[in-house]
Amino acid sequence: MSESDAGGVRSVQRAVELLALYDAEHPSRTVRELVDATGMAKTTVVRLVHTLERCGLLWSRGDGHTVPGPGLLHWAELARSTWQLPESAIALMKGLSEASDGEAVHLYVRQQQARVCIARHEGARTLRHVVRVGQEMPLWSGAASHVLLSRAERADVTQVAAAAPHEDWATVLWERAQKAAVAGWAVSHGEREVGVSGVAAPVFDKAGRVTAALALGGPTTRFTDEAVAAFVPALTAAARDLTALDCVGGSAR
Amino acid sequence: MSESDAGGVRSVQRAVELLALYDAEHPSRTVRELVDATGMAKTTVVRLVHTLERCGLLWSRGDGHTVPGPGLLHWAELARSTWQLPESAIALMKGLSEASDGEAVHLYVRQQQARVCIARHEGARTLRHVVRVGQEMPLWSGAASHVLLSRAERADVTQVAAAAPHEDWATVLWERAQKAAVAGWAVSHGEREVGVSGVAAPVFDKAGRVTAALALGGPTTRFTDEAVAAFVPALTAAARDLTALDCVGGSAR
Repeated sequence: MSESDAGGVRSVQRAVELLALYDAEHPSRTVRELVDATGMAKTTVVRLVHTLERCGLLWSRGDGHTVPGPGLLHWAELARSTWQLPESAIALMKGLSEASDGEAVHLYVRQQQARVCIARHEGARTLRHVVRVGQEMPLWSGAASHVLLSRAERADVTQVAAAAPHEDWATVLWERAQKAAVAGWAVSHGEREVGVSGVAAPVFDKAGRVTAALALGGPTTRFTDEAVAAFVPALTAAARDLTALDCVGGSAR
Repeated sequence: MSESDAGGVRSVQRAVELLALYDAEHPSRTVRELVDATGMAKTTVVRLVHTLERCGLLWSRGDGHTVPGPGLLHWAELARSTWQLPESAIALMKGLSEASDGEAVHLYVRQQQARVCIARHEGARTLRHVVRVGQEMPLWSGAASHVLLSRAERADVTQVAAAAPHEDWATVLWERAQKAAVAGWAVSHGEREVGVSGVAAPVFDKAGRVTAALALGGPTTRFTDEAVAAFVPALTAAARDLTALDCVGGSAR
């Protein structure tokens, strides 16, 4: 890879890094803020902002602030059409929540070294596990991760485990992924956050690859062995039904 | 600008160019298709696709096809929160359509050398002017463009006019923008597409800059001088009300 190729990849990553700084708490940003938040040189930020404005991904409001650009509206539509589940799938997730004492239901896909929530049913409990659609979670932890990694190569799992703040996590994660593969579901307690538990089952694509993990999440106090045993039949049935619908990542279209 | 800086900007533009190839007709793409559609070298496409996958903007479905990535869901939410108009503004646009014999209403903002539709009310007519939210239109044509350029510098207007497939368009566009500035509204017939007419009025931000153009669009046969004269009072009143709401580009937040 030449110098300029390497610079190109870095520039794309930096551009995405800049865009990621806009969120609900920071709907607009000044160049100064972007420089402070990234540590990039001001000339680099100015150049990237200008490029992103030209592409419609940022929009200059005229008062020195930039906001996410109207060009994102096209991609928003595209993301929706690719990832929006059909009504039948949404009904399935709602049904699973109701069959599980109102616990929250999330659907995750793998995205490189992370898992991303692509759909959810918030559940009916006052104390609930809330993950927003689009939110990234670490792939080294949680029942949904074990399921997503259940057919992964060992070297892949080792690489994922490297991000964990634990010693020897590669072995632990590999064993948990293997256990999920054998059982057809997984359970975890407090792996990422103390007090939070999850149960997950795999959704497959037509070629038999694990394409998503359907998960119930809630406080560990409610996820007793007895409760988990009661959740599993409804969870695995719902995951099988989602597999039949073949609707993750727009594969049914 | 160093070689590698130039390469960086080019890479960001190319990455955006790749993403733009995904649309309703092409919800998934192979590397082969991306190479064919862009004329880029295969190694360049592979490198960019890999980078975009790492950023979550593309997602490999596992069958050799990539789709828009789940990372876009975060940006979709952001684009919505920035560009989604409050209910009161949506009601205003609906009211304008009803007051104008059911013609379609669109709201455009300038994005570099284009205008982008950020909101619409489709109207009630069978033969209607349909522009999707997120769709780009040329800034060198149409009443909405005249309004968006009504306070622009002459050099800026000249640059915009250079994209028009007409001789001496810089002078024509400048005159039409000046006319819009004086009148406070603009009308156009068949500038971009024969048989399509528009009437537009400016929406201002708090600092008095033109931030958007509110436009009625429909077939030229219905946009007679008499009809336009009847549309203008409701149109300019609605544009003033939108100015008071101060809601374009998230500026009210």
